[in-house]
Amino acid sequence: MKEKVLIFDTTLRDGEQSPGASLNVQEKVEIARQLEKLNVDIIEAGFPASSPLQFDAVRQIGEESGKIVAGLCRSVEGDIRSAHEALRNAAHPRIHTFVSTSDIHIMGKFGHERYGRSLDEKRRTILNMAVDAVRFARTFTGDVEFSAEDAGRTDPSYLAEIIEAVIDAGATTVNIPDTTGYTWPSEFGRKIAGLKQRVANIDRATISVHCHNDLGLAVANTLSAIENGARQAECSMNGIGERAGNASLEEIVMALKVRSDLHGYHTDIATEEIYNTSRMVSSFTGLVIQPNKAIVGDNAFSHESGIHQDGMLKNRQTYEVMTPQSVGVPETSIVLGRHSGKHGLQARLESLGYSVSGEELENVYQRFLSVADKKKEVYDDDLRVLMGDELSRPQDAIELDYLHVNSGTASIPTATVRIRSKENTYEESSTGDGPVDACFKAIERALDLGSLVNSYSVRSTTAGRQALGEATVRIEDEGRFHTGRGVSTDIIEASAKAYLQALSLREEARSGGNDNRINNGI
Amino acid sequence: MKEKVLIFDTTLRDGEQSPGASLNVQEKVEIARQLEKLNVDIIEAGFPASSPLQFDAVRQIGEESGKIVAGLCRSVEGDIRSAHEALRNAAHPRIHTFVSTSDIHIMGKFGHERYGRSLDEKRRTILNMAVDAVRFARTFTGDVEFSAEDAGRTDPSYLAEIIEAVIDAGATTVNIPDTTGYTWPSEFGRKIAGLKQRVANIDRATISVHCHNDLGLAVANTLSAIENGARQAECSMNGIGERAGNASLEEIVMALKVRSDLHGYHTDIATEEIYNTSRMVSSFTGLVIQPNKAIVGDNAFSHESGIHQDGMLKNRQTYEVMTPQSVGVPETSIVLGRHSGKHGLQARLESLGYSVSGEELENVYQRFLSVADKKKEVYDDDLRVLMGDELSRPQDAIELDYLHVNSGTASIPTATVRIRSKENTYEESSTGDGPVDACFKAIERALDLGSLVNSYSVRSTTAGRQALGEATVRIEDEGRFHTGRGVSTDIIEASAKAYLQALSLREEARSGGNDNRINNGI
Repeated sequence: MKEKVLIFDTTLRDGEQSPGASLNVQEKVEIARQLEKLNVDIIEAGFPASSPLQFDAVRQIGEESGKIVAGLCRSVEGDIRSAHEALRNAAHPRIHTFVSTSDIHIMGKFGHERYGRSLDEKRRTILNMAVDAVRFARTFTGDVEFSAEDAGRTDPSYLAEIIEAVIDAGATTVNIPDTTGYTWPSEFGRKIAGLKQRVANIDRATISVHCHNDLGLAVANTLSAIENGARQAECSMNGIGERAGNASLEEIVMALKVRSDLHGYHTDIATEEIYNTSRMVSSFTGLVIQPNKAIVGDNAFSHESGIHQDGMLKNRQTYEVMTPQSVGVPETSIVLGRHSGKHGLQARLESLGYSVSGEELENVYQRFLSVADKKKEVYDDDLRVLMGDELSRPQDAIELDYLHVNSGTASIPTATVRIRSKENTYEESSTGDGPVDACFKAIERALDLGSLVNSYSVRSTTAGRQALGEATVRIEDEGRFHTGRGVSTDIIEASAKAYLQALSLREEARSGGNDNRINNGI
Repeated sequence: MKEKVLIFDTTLRDGEQSPGASLNVQEKVEIARQLEKLNVDIIEAGFPASSPLQFDAVRQIGEESGKIVAGLCRSVEGDIRSAHEALRNAAHPRIHTFVSTSDIHIMGKFGHERYGRSLDEKRRTILNMAVDAVRFARTFTGDVEFSAEDAGRTDPSYLAEIIEAVIDAGATTVNIPDTTGYTWPSEFGRKIAGLKQRVANIDRATISVHCHNDLGLAVANTLSAIENGARQAECSMNGIGERAGNASLEEIVMALKVRSDLHGYHTDIATEEIYNTSRMVSSFTGLVIQPNKAIVGDNAFSHESGIHQDGMLKNRQTYEVMTPQSVGVPETSIVLGRHSGKHGLQARLESLGYSVSGEELENVYQRFLSVADKKKEVYDDDLRVLMGDELSRPQDAIELDYLHVNSGTASIPTATVRIRSKENTYEESSTGDGPVDACFKAIERALDLGSLVNSYSVRSTTAGRQALGEATVRIEDEGRFHTGRGVSTDIIEASAKAYLQALSLREEARSGGNDNRINNGI
């Protein structure tokens, strides 16, 4: 019998903390549905105390998911209560509480003398906070996870002590995060083996790990921990997360699966849903996947060189340790057109992981028709972009009503725009260094803004003749980022829409929707 | 005393085999110069027998580099002779010969019965080929490396046998590639430790490893091999290479450096040149770096969440295990303008890793001035893009002479182009689904082509108000890819230029410049 490794997905929590990746509630719900199809064991849906939007997302996902849904909270009463409130109607709620345990974090975050004067006193305070937090969380649910933030750099004796104490207090999962991505696999494996030895009651809890990728070792550290006794892997789709991100779900799962001959481990992941999930997360977050990304990159299964291609024909296994089909990379593309009908569209969207019905389906269908009018063939990637665009549209958008652009090698690029907000309509024109610049300047003139654009990118989404252009504009406003997306067969129009959407999100944030954002960093 | 690990860079060989990443000779030479600044120990410059362009690149790099320059070759006389010819004037030539050793590769590539009827007979033939190849290579140089392709899946006894035989034949470096990225770190470490035990003469050669990233474990496998006796790491900048790529140079080097407390290893890499090298490679190959890439991704040193930002202010080390400065991420941007002058430009380019003088400098300066006319501020990334554009311009380009575009929400996108080739001038116009599509269609009409576009992307290169747009067009023609780049403040114009450049490269390939391409796959 193979031993099961639980997959704890934190795409919606740590992944969403990637700079510029903020997801709205609808997008998080849609990703959670796909994670359910992927059959992860635990969905960490967010950090309820950090903002009303986070709270809402955790609540909605908890209400509809059949999986364990986790809400993160610091080791303080208010946070724990908020996690409980958000998960009140979840079928399988998990409260996940954390506190820093490394000296460097303790001195940095608990420097005030109310936490104790010496490092030893502070350590004692923190241990008590952790125990109290776990006990309090246990009054709400029998499923409580405790994380020792920066465990990778925590003194082994103190780490063992606090882990033993929280298990005694009722923690059912104990998580050992390498918060700063500092450890080597051999070292991290020894750390887990050491805990198994030192902590008397360790068998009463599941050992979890949560590895960051600052040195490129997150996946290997996770596997090394599993070899040494960990049975829960915290990870994210495409490896997104703070800084260099988290361990990639797809890499951990496929390393365990492809090399099931090596060890007795398995996961319950439906691996053929990996590709759909990866594409959905990339499309919603706007975080691109590099072509040489393992498992899900565009080049992961392709071969340039003559010898390789020759070898491939002779025997696929010569250079591939897994098949593209095993992770859901489609072999042939199914193409829709304007005669495909609403049910055809719905069925195709479902096979891509999107669950749409009722009014939402009607909206998507109308947008699909307008695209199908311009493009003879609508590909899967076009549909992903349409869905991303549909879900990310804020309710009180500043909208593009009219655009005209004139440019070329012998003319001064000029753009004219008409923009509609809730209250007003604005018309303006501007020249610029290129048509997009002219267009952005016209928008800024119309709305009386300085330039807020922090980064801008456009990509075409399909290999077909008439690709949809998807533009992403990230703006920076008082230290916060807002990312807007726009889609059109015209990349200038897509760019204008993306800028306006980012500006809409900024409005929303300013009017309080995203206030008091506190987040964590295990 | 810390033991040195040699860094063998294969960006220009395995990295260049990434689908769509082909580099021209000038670009390879420029990257090699930067690798010299980075202070790698060995530069693998290409596979001389595979094409005249590869031969030329290896020759030029060998002639000017003070480092060890390696040329790859199969274990056959013609290939080895070609590597020798290419490296004839190198200060420190290395001939790097390889043959497949795993059963699956042997049966796939040496299936013909002239290599023997049974697997055992074939293994014997291959061992003899390897020994003969090493002996022959040693007649040209004292520095010979042997690679056992797919060693990761090779029978340990046979691997030990062939390694011992090639060392006896004179191999000074023996490379153990995990060609298909199949192994786990613990397993790969045991493989290296096993060789140290089994191979009697192992101390007469340097053990090298070359790990692929199919399961996301290339860097960890490399480190595990080092812990077990390997003293040369083959790797590439940004981890580019076949499929999911190779072990990332920057991750290996920084893992060794940041954790020098763990083990007694060091490299001689000038780590503060990592960022420049990474950006140059990405710009020349057109392979994007995902934001959550360790060390060199845009988000590697940035922090979104409130707690993190707060923690950062208190103590940078709370979440960063290395400083951005240690890998050369610039803290402040230096901005040039049209009054910076030619020497100012040259100095700035040099600090970014580009060595330009004479006519090349004059050309870049003229292009710089025309950009500085449009943009008030010219950033480092703008200069990188300009350099990429300058170096990638093929000599017999099909050029864009005139472009005019008209588009918007209420008009039919229309483009007019005039194109100049060596023989002719063509004028055409077309409508399209968007301005880029109209422009591509006008080009195709003018040149009487079907659509060859396989993928298309545009990105803006700087955070500034007036970003340069860099377009990349990949075309597919009879199973081969050609990638063109174009740069302009007008993304439509950049797109047209990129398409024309890809078409120019196709012309060049068709007229024989890139014929008989054979490549390898260790």
